[in-house]
Amino acid sequence: MQPEVNGADDFLASALVQKSPLTPDAGAFLHEREESASYDVERIPLAALPNWHLGDRLSRADGKFFTVEGLSVRTDFGPVPQWSQPIIVQPEIGILGIIAKRFDGVLHFLMQAKMEPGNTAFVQYAATVQATQSNYQRVHGGRATPYLEYFLEGGRRRILFDQLLSEHGFWYLNKRNRNMIVEVPEDEDVHVEDDFTWLTLGQLRHQLMLGNRVNMNARTVLSGIAYGAAEDQPSYAEQTDGFHAELLTSHRTPSSSAALSATLTWLFDQKAKSNLDVRRISLRDMDEWICDDDSIRHRDGRIFDIIGMSVQATSREVGTWWQPMLEPRPGNAVALICQRRDGVLHFLLQATIQPGLTDRLELGPTIQFSPGYHRGPQDFPPLTQYLDAPAAWTRLDTIQSEDGGRFSKADTRHLVVEIPEDHAIETPDNYRWITLNMLNRLTRFGYHVNVEARSLAACLL
Amino acid sequence: MQPEVNGADDFLASALVQKSPLTPDAGAFLHEREESASYDVERIPLAALPNWHLGDRLSRADGKFFTVEGLSVRTDFGPVPQWSQPIIVQPEIGILGIIAKRFDGVLHFLMQAKMEPGNTAFVQYAATVQATQSNYQRVHGGRATPYLEYFLEGGRRRILFDQLLSEHGFWYLNKRNRNMIVEVPEDEDVHVEDDFTWLTLGQLRHQLMLGNRVNMNARTVLSGIAYGAAEDQPSYAEQTDGFHAELLTSHRTPSSSAALSATLTWLFDQKAKSNLDVRRISLRDMDEWICDDDSIRHRDGRIFDIIGMSVQATSREVGTWWQPMLEPRPGNAVALICQRRDGVLHFLLQATIQPGLTDRLELGPTIQFSPGYHRGPQDFPPLTQYLDAPAAWTRLDTIQSEDGGRFSKADTRHLVVEIPEDHAIETPDNYRWITLNMLNRLTRFGYHVNVEARSLAACLL
Repeated sequence: MQPEVNGADDFLASALVQKSPLTPDAGAFLHEREESASYDVERIPLAALPNWHLGDRLSRADGKFFTVEGLSVRTDFGPVPQWSQPIIVQPEIGILGIIAKRFDGVLHFLMQAKMEPGNTAFVQYAATVQATQSNYQRVHGGRATPYLEYFLEGGRRRILFDQLLSEHGFWYLNKRNRNMIVEVPEDEDVHVEDDFTWLTLGQLRHQLMLGNRVNMNARTVLSGIAYGAAEDQPSYAEQTDGFHAELLTSHRTPSSSAALSATLTWLFDQKAKSNLDVRRISLRDMDEWICDDDSIRHRDGRIFDIIGMSVQATSREVGTWWQPMLEPRPGNAVALICQRRDGVLHFLLQATIQPGLTDRLELGPTIQFSPGYHRGPQDFPPLTQYLDAPAAWTRLDTIQSEDGGRFSKADTRHLVVEIPEDHAIETPDNYRWITLNMLNRLTRFGYHVNVEARSLAACLL
Repeated sequence: MQPEVNGADDFLASALVQKSPLTPDAGAFLHEREESASYDVERIPLAALPNWHLGDRLSRADGKFFTVEGLSVRTDFGPVPQWSQPIIVQPEIGILGIIAKRFDGVLHFLMQAKMEPGNTAFVQYAATVQATQSNYQRVHGGRATPYLEYFLEGGRRRILFDQLLSEHGFWYLNKRNRNMIVEVPEDEDVHVEDDFTWLTLGQLRHQLMLGNRVNMNARTVLSGIAYGAAEDQPSYAEQTDGFHAELLTSHRTPSSSAALSATLTWLFDQKAKSNLDVRRISLRDMDEWICDDDSIRHRDGRIFDIIGMSVQATSREVGTWWQPMLEPRPGNAVALICQRRDGVLHFLLQATIQPGLTDRLELGPTIQFSPGYHRGPQDFPPLTQYLDAPAAWTRLDTIQSEDGGRFSKADTRHLVVEIPEDHAIETPDNYRWITLNMLNRLTRFGYHVNVEARSLAACLL
């Protein structure tokens, strides 16, 4: 039995609308906003960051915002049993929220063209609100966060989606954000501020296909969207091409209660099987890492760097600021392998431990490839060879950015590969084939699907 | 819409059966098992524990089993913004599992009469299996855990309940166990080992009412039982008295999908509102604590002690062992206040932060009273006065033990108070009235209901 999903039919109808009079050209809007402001982002030494101090941890003088700390990790999962690394610590729960509203019967989403200093494509579509508690309590003295009141307790909100979801488990310690979609009644006026515009889900899908147009925070919120298992929309079959029609079928094929139970039991089996013990330590006590006035970096140039950044912008809450950022090694890739099974597209998810995850293990993409983390081909994860799958199998191959507010030049290739039905693929026990419907149901449980998998899922709406 | 719940009707039918030929007298069985073995439990200095070492942490020489470490806590929840305390660290996920099987159509549960050295009532009914990974991998050289195979991946199991649930958030750091109920087919023979016997849920309910007969691990598993919202059992009304009938109605009144969403949104509001930052530190760096050869204790005799224990027993996996234990101050109490609202019994739950919880905040009982933690009446939690409610309002007042494998003399008074319908009760924002049906649905989500609330819920089956 499928539980009700708020807004499922409206989401599907909106996904099929590619044009809207409210934003005739979503690409042009973004471009125009980018032109309207100026940004100057410059790498500087950590020691030159005003208000930040590098000691046992890297922190602000007032103790607010976030810290970078050392982490000692022990696990029996994966090829490396023990290591230390820096990690970003920010225990507060932020809000990533999108306002939705019907116009002429079609659900539109209020998106913000937002500059984030770490992104290689500076300006991208972001959620209506992306606010840490520091943000909206104005720790760094900025302006009030517009639209925040739609997401706060007691507001007039019809909740379409509301869940605490994890962030990058290799880069953040126990970080989670509240992902929300709230619907405003059709007859309620919502003032559209500069940098904001209404897009249909079809328009957002198109921007997602292009790559580097929809930021990470928006993608994780969008991954909560369910199309449910309602009756067919009248014009649904005509409006979709081959692969998109397959995706919709995978979204809308109901998962039985028994199948959900079996999947959860398998997931708990995976969680119980491996151990993870993490301990915050002084940055000075990390093996193999160098901390100096310039940066925090691995002695062999692996993993990632923590660097200083100075930012001057005219379009963000504060015009000029300085902050540390995490800069990964280039070449990160995430991939989902899919295959028709019993007539429905199934995706191969991997249950994987990451040191910063709140609950240790979540479902990740089939392949999560981080050149900085692998010492060499002997450490490459299973199925890495499918990153070079033939073009005929490739359904999506695009670059998406990670959170450009914390991560510098963190571009990740997003790949979806469809394996022919007669092609057999050998998978370890911690991999499982599931439909998009099941993936969404697991996402709606909370800490079961990691941010890399959700980012890919947003590209499969 | 109510999701299917595996076994819901069978659970309800079993709850109404108070006698079973398989175990004619559940109390006598327990008594007999207690008589059949001898136990000698003695407090010893920490320094006298073989294989354990007290340094920056209290740990075994081989690094296995568990450790006691220092924890530095900062939070804006509750009256105390900052403190340090010892905490038990055991990152592995244990299994608490009960085997269920029908006899003559009635579901019975295979319970173990188990000795736990910390309990004031030594022998109590435990789950069929309660095994840490250390246990079943035989770190301390004991015998194999019987029945474990029914709960392991790949076994022939029909899962009635399977969820990761938190343990005591003030005593354990991020501890969670897998709580499972698996049903074995009626025609499959299950060998009954010594110390094990089959009980109906009705028999278990009776033992729960008596107090100190059903251990904490069994109670948390039983709290997963749902009666669902099926049609009335034919004889259901005749077989229940007034308050039990009210409980069953509260269990079986379906929660709408909208009500569930609203409750989750309220819970996320509570999680997002408060901060918690915990950091493992050396035992030597804890403010206000004394660590010496004898014990780890608060300088004012508050909070709890970590003591050494020597145990000699003939009925456990290993005959003689030594271990540290946590001994709380006496006088702990947990209470649920309930009231008829719209004709259905609702219970007042409190969203509360505890430093060791995996996800920071969970729903706890209305009142969680720990004399060791409160410096005086100024720190008493809201509604503490209801611990002295008139006898006419008292529906349950019994003593239950905490996990006697880790905690010494940890007896907790369990109280349920029904407030008359015309009695108004002022509650802070982080309290909410919910039915038992809603409480069970939240329990089935994972980390939303704390072990203290689940222990009370088990007494309300």
